[in-house]
Amino acid sequence: MSSALTDLKTRLADVNALHAAVTIMDWDQQTYMPRGGADARAQHLGILSRMAHETLVADDTRTALDKATPEAEDDEAMLRVVRRHIDLATKLPSSLVEEKTRLAAIAHERWVEARANSDFNGFAATLEKMFDIAKQEAEYLGYTEHVYDALLDQYEQGATAAEVRTMFESIKGPQVELVKAISEQPQLDDSKLYGHWNESDQSEFTQMLVKSIGFDFNRGRQDTAPHPFCTGWSVGDIRLTTRYKPYIGSAIFGSLHEAGHGMYEQGSPMTWDRTPLAGGVSLGVHESQSRTWENIVGRSKPFWSHFLPALQAKFPALSGFDLDTFYRAINKVEPSYIRVEADELTYNLHVLVRFEIECDVLTGKLAVKDLPEAWNAKYAQYLGITPRNDAEGCLQDVHWSMGSIGYFPTYSMGNLLSYQFWHALERDVPDTEELMAKGEFAPILGWLTDHIYSAGKRFTPKHLIKRVTGKPIGADDYLAGLDKKYREIYRL
Amino acid sequence: MSSALTDLKTRLADVNALHAAVTIMDWDQQTYMPRGGADARAQHLGILSRMAHETLVADDTRTALDKATPEAEDDEAMLRVVRRHIDLATKLPSSLVEEKTRLAAIAHERWVEARANSDFNGFAATLEKMFDIAKQEAEYLGYTEHVYDALLDQYEQGATAAEVRTMFESIKGPQVELVKAISEQPQLDDSKLYGHWNESDQSEFTQMLVKSIGFDFNRGRQDTAPHPFCTGWSVGDIRLTTRYKPYIGSAIFGSLHEAGHGMYEQGSPMTWDRTPLAGGVSLGVHESQSRTWENIVGRSKPFWSHFLPALQAKFPALSGFDLDTFYRAINKVEPSYIRVEADELTYNLHVLVRFEIECDVLTGKLAVKDLPEAWNAKYAQYLGITPRNDAEGCLQDVHWSMGSIGYFPTYSMGNLLSYQFWHALERDVPDTEELMAKGEFAPILGWLTDHIYSAGKRFTPKHLIKRVTGKPIGADDYLAGLDKKYREIYRL
Repeated sequence: MSSALTDLKTRLADVNALHAAVTIMDWDQQTYMPRGGADARAQHLGILSRMAHETLVADDTRTALDKATPEAEDDEAMLRVVRRHIDLATKLPSSLVEEKTRLAAIAHERWVEARANSDFNGFAATLEKMFDIAKQEAEYLGYTEHVYDALLDQYEQGATAAEVRTMFESIKGPQVELVKAISEQPQLDDSKLYGHWNESDQSEFTQMLVKSIGFDFNRGRQDTAPHPFCTGWSVGDIRLTTRYKPYIGSAIFGSLHEAGHGMYEQGSPMTWDRTPLAGGVSLGVHESQSRTWENIVGRSKPFWSHFLPALQAKFPALSGFDLDTFYRAINKVEPSYIRVEADELTYNLHVLVRFEIECDVLTGKLAVKDLPEAWNAKYAQYLGITPRNDAEGCLQDVHWSMGSIGYFPTYSMGNLLSYQFWHALERDVPDTEELMAKGEFAPILGWLTDHIYSAGKRFTPKHLIKRVTGKPIGADDYLAGLDKKYREIYRL
Repeated sequence: MSSALTDLKTRLADVNALHAAVTIMDWDQQTYMPRGGADARAQHLGILSRMAHETLVADDTRTALDKATPEAEDDEAMLRVVRRHIDLATKLPSSLVEEKTRLAAIAHERWVEARANSDFNGFAATLEKMFDIAKQEAEYLGYTEHVYDALLDQYEQGATAAEVRTMFESIKGPQVELVKAISEQPQLDDSKLYGHWNESDQSEFTQMLVKSIGFDFNRGRQDTAPHPFCTGWSVGDIRLTTRYKPYIGSAIFGSLHEAGHGMYEQGSPMTWDRTPLAGGVSLGVHESQSRTWENIVGRSKPFWSHFLPALQAKFPALSGFDLDTFYRAINKVEPSYIRVEADELTYNLHVLVRFEIECDVLTGKLAVKDLPEAWNAKYAQYLGITPRNDAEGCLQDVHWSMGSIGYFPTYSMGNLLSYQFWHALERDVPDTEELMAKGEFAPILGWLTDHIYSAGKRFTPKHLIKRVTGKPIGADDYLAGLDKKYREIYRL
């Protein structure tokens, strides 16, 4: 006779297979799917998501969970993770989940078209429905203080809108001051980083880069997508995407960013494959790793002391750069419109705009139709610039079309955590600069894998952060890191 | 209250979504999946196939089917198709279906490796398991005369091993005679068709070709795969694959062949999308369409009178060809090892080998371990040549690794049917040569769509063939067509 735990694991394997189907269909939709496939894709995704949800919240699953007792080392952590999944999922009616998934598939097509035409009106009705679904979700999930808490907790267990506000308060002052000091210095010239770069050269170069830092192409690949992302359905199959733009940094830093996510996913123990323990523990911790490889590693001087010759060999138009000029150019600070292409210093201000707007729409202070106006006003206020159109304004990101509302603050948490984890890493791996200059990333990846990646979801995010860094999430390491870096770059 | 028919349709939509998931995972496995993804893919495919099967054979589905009555025009045909699906599926235990799907995913990796190393021993044990599963399938499905009938009926409703033997008897004499007459003529020189052809040029040219004949890239795409195939999960999303080889005809005729399958799938009414009526009616009729576009259209002189200049512009190494020499070169008859690259005349002899071997393994006359020897002996007997290794022998095709045993004869049925349907088409569209020479394929595609593609699975294959051509499948049009074509080419 099989144990309740075995029954539970069988059911979870079914849920995992259905999620894998949804995830690969989503990957395909963003990379290769012809337009004509959109309607059927929406229907298929809706049905398969509904089935996954139904299986997860089925009485038999709940019974197996309630009766299951740990039999092996990781079972207790697995049961904790599963209990949370099932508790969250049980609160949401299957019909709402199916409706959201179906809407998301349609919304993606609408968003692509609206952004291409910079036509917010073509997307507004769909976005309004998506916010309406988010509000319903929050009510079903429940919260004590703020409607936002219910949504945020799904992505970052235990985090609250109040904590997010505190975080922004603690970084706003020092960052605005630093940006102001920089604005009084002569601006850096990065115009040579813009041009027409051959796409297959960009593909080859970025694949060489992410392979060099440790992304395993036997267990993953890189494709292109309008909005870069990382996804996967097995520790052995993690997919990155990148995009090719006139700014050569789009592909380079986009690829390094997604590879950071990807290496985190590849770092789960293979024995946890297809189980709830595999993969990143929260979006904030996940983002800390993408930002680590993109910014702390990928925008460092030692990194480019190693890779600049290869870059210049591939793209002779960049051969005029010396290391110092190149390093300063890729770290140019300038308020800009597009979050994913923002410099490290102004990045969090983009997130702040999104956070405030989401709160205002969710609490009814702002109507969706007035969103572009509010968006542009906040950009003027925080960044001193006004988007020229909605494509570079509130239509820039894919996430709202996916129904990912209430998770943008995890980007800023990731920024803080990247420096906080790196600070801990440097205590054990003191010669990081030397290693990067030699192109040796294995000791760095090894430390991150040992301390973060291989832990999967075994600990809660707050527990993991404390365990690895000795303290809860905070702004100190982040602010100190940026201060040191940018004072040198801008000769302050 | 919903009707039994509505209940049934809802359940069929679930089955369809699960099949779509399995199909896209299979497509991905053959096109883009990294090797590390194979184990999880095998597990996912096994679970999802089992779910699809369980849903199809569930008591509730059967009850809905038994109670359902036609409400709209196509419901009666739909119920007939579904009843057959469910009857077939009910005979097979879910555990066998899951085992087969899981084995197929593993077998695919084993086959790729075994073929790369030309190492039959590395694949033998897996293949033996696959034949064992096929035998079990046949016993579960049942048959009156021959174990082969049970398997063949799954792919070609109503066809039997006896009919297949009759078919081969009726074509063997005339074809062997024609091949012999040709072998006494001076051989044609097609050596210029072999070279190093730029892959992206081949990709562009073949996509231009299949777009020109009518494959709709808004509802499909073309990628590369080790063994070209066509698949899809919606009338709006049909995927072709091709491959690039030293023989430039591999990509060209492979693409045209798969586009024939693809246009058949794209020709179903959009209102049938995601229902059991959409798609090709049988493998034999399907193959007739791939062979029509590959051979009757794509290897005709008028076709190349239109496209040769574009081919030569893309590949200047071919510029020495005049139309007549090129036309004769792409129709060179010569016994060869690889079925998919065989000329029209010797093609069926490859199928005959496979058919006889499958019968012998299934009836226990031949052990899997002795298969390469038997394979090579039959090639010596029927084609007068002996494969130099198993990669160009019994390991050449993907199908056994997929568990597709008992369907090879549908290839030969497709060859016969392509000429039989074309003969009917020429009564309504008398100027096909002129149209092709002008690059106008819409009237031809239109006729095929009206008479075959848009019928989907509404009629049984035997009914459809009779309806369109006025007679059951036969060899007359095929033999007459080949005779006329090759007597001219070889100046007999």
